[in-house]
Amino acid sequence: MTKRIVIALGGNALGNNLPEQMIAVQHTARAIVDLIEEGNEVVIVHGNGPQVGMIANAMTELTRSDPEKYIPCPLSVCGAMSQGYIGYDLQNALREEMLRRGIDKGVATVLTQVQVDPEDPAFERPTKPIGSFMTEEEAETLRRERDYDFMFDPKKGYRRVVASPKPGSIVEIATIRTLFESGHIVIACGGGGIPVLPTEGFHLKGAAAVIDKDFAAEKLAEQLAADTLIILTAVEKVAVGFGTDHEEWLDELTPERARELADAGEFGEGSMKPKVEACTQFVESGEGRSALITLLEKARDGIAGKTGTRIVR
Amino acid sequence: MTKRIVIALGGNALGNNLPEQMIAVQHTARAIVDLIEEGNEVVIVHGNGPQVGMIANAMTELTRSDPEKYIPCPLSVCGAMSQGYIGYDLQNALREEMLRRGIDKGVATVLTQVQVDPEDPAFERPTKPIGSFMTEEEAETLRRERDYDFMFDPKKGYRRVVASPKPGSIVEIATIRTLFESGHIVIACGGGGIPVLPTEGFHLKGAAAVIDKDFAAEKLAEQLAADTLIILTAVEKVAVGFGTDHEEWLDELTPERARELADAGEFGEGSMKPKVEACTQFVESGEGRSALITLLEKARDGIAGKTGTRIVR
Repeated sequence: MTKRIVIALGGNALGNNLPEQMIAVQHTARAIVDLIEEGNEVVIVHGNGPQVGMIANAMTELTRSDPEKYIPCPLSVCGAMSQGYIGYDLQNALREEMLRRGIDKGVATVLTQVQVDPEDPAFERPTKPIGSFMTEEEAETLRRERDYDFMFDPKKGYRRVVASPKPGSIVEIATIRTLFESGHIVIACGGGGIPVLPTEGFHLKGAAAVIDKDFAAEKLAEQLAADTLIILTAVEKVAVGFGTDHEEWLDELTPERARELADAGEFGEGSMKPKVEACTQFVESGEGRSALITLLEKARDGIAGKTGTRIVR
Repeated sequence: MTKRIVIALGGNALGNNLPEQMIAVQHTARAIVDLIEEGNEVVIVHGNGPQVGMIANAMTELTRSDPEKYIPCPLSVCGAMSQGYIGYDLQNALREEMLRRGIDKGVATVLTQVQVDPEDPAFERPTKPIGSFMTEEEAETLRRERDYDFMFDPKKGYRRVVASPKPGSIVEIATIRTLFESGHIVIACGGGGIPVLPTEGFHLKGAAAVIDKDFAAEKLAEQLAADTLIILTAVEKVAVGFGTDHEEWLDELTPERARELADAGEFGEGSMKPKVEACTQFVESGEGRSALITLLEKARDGIAGKTGTRIVR
């Protein structure tokens, strides 16, 4: 039974630097091609935390080396570069793994922007850390000169934080749909998509923000009328009482139960909670839609109903 | 009369840094949307000289700042990043300019790889300069540690040079064709495409090389069965006796005449010569194909036969 699947892949699953990414994409490609081999149609949304951090650091070093010539690089531009960087390695690894198994399908990386709402309350409360830790002095300079926000960790120092607004419309949705419906494996909304703000004309202005890639994947899955949203993460199943003596791993969750548990504080803020929320939202968006949270290497077993946590009405 | 047009756009026409690019893409978009408004179907290939140079410099600074964590970034990866960087600004400017004129068409940037032949004689004779000038000592270190090649300019110092092999097959051609035929404005083969070498398995290995964007555009125009290849450059027409007292601006050139003039040394190596060569090759590749060399702002007049140098059988 062929399914239309949108997969959300963590940026950490792609490694922290160039050689790590080269190896990580191979593992990732094997797990994804397992799903393709069974006839499923697949779109991949990936995170970009370590990668956009690396690029932002590189662009900061460039500005430092020649401040006359190079202005600071906006986060949106770093995000665009990270889609190129990750897409290149990921699409190659997928192409290679498919050819090895005799599957002849196109793989495409679509540079994707996602509109965000300037009134999103997330802009009032930046929470998403970006780039390296720095000293109080460095942070103070950037706060003054560029209006950056910072978090403080007593052990590590200061780190820039940006807003994480909810995704609005996906600017390149028609492109993604055209490729998906013509049989391509599509890599889209990398890093959650480049967040852009509508302006008075038709210009889209890059926002200093990061969209959660799980919510971006949910939005994309809705718009492509996918059957299943798979969120791949560091645990095989969702747990209640995680880390306590009454810890229980869940095989299935209804949207109602998921909300109850979330309200009871069972899922970590900024980790499992948004994943469960994205899954719930997708399942409630249409008939016959299901979601799955599991490990990368368990994706095939999860789709077969053998493991993972399935969210279903 | 609707035409299928492939446009080759110089990387220099996109500006040398972030603010320059933001402005340059607006001019560029106006000229290109002029052609779209007249009903033509357009694919854009752009150069990336200044942009990939900026990114390569940034990645070098990053490695310098933390050599334990960051290895030197291959040129192919910098190229992938530059496709993201340029594509983001260019597709936005095109989208905006089209919407302003009431044209509702998708614009897509396709991350593109182009195969090159490891036996290409260009690998024996690297000629394409990349990144900043440096001292003899810095160059010597890179030559020893990373096997880089250098050119020497008595006034400016040492600069890395890489090979400029001819483009072979375009890996993402099916993606580009699908989008083009569904009515998208497509940005592809950015920087001439990321050059990749076939290996024994199915792996494509990034090459430390730069494909000439005019030849990449020619190849793409052939594969898309385009009617016209437009190479936009810094002069309105091709000249013979350029800069002499018998200088003559050409309105039309046949492939035969173009070859004669090229053999007589009329066109600058690495500047006008490869442009004329790419045009000649395209015109000879099929019935009814023509090519045009002119200024960005003369593209519409050129297509209307009012200016530029037309290469035609």
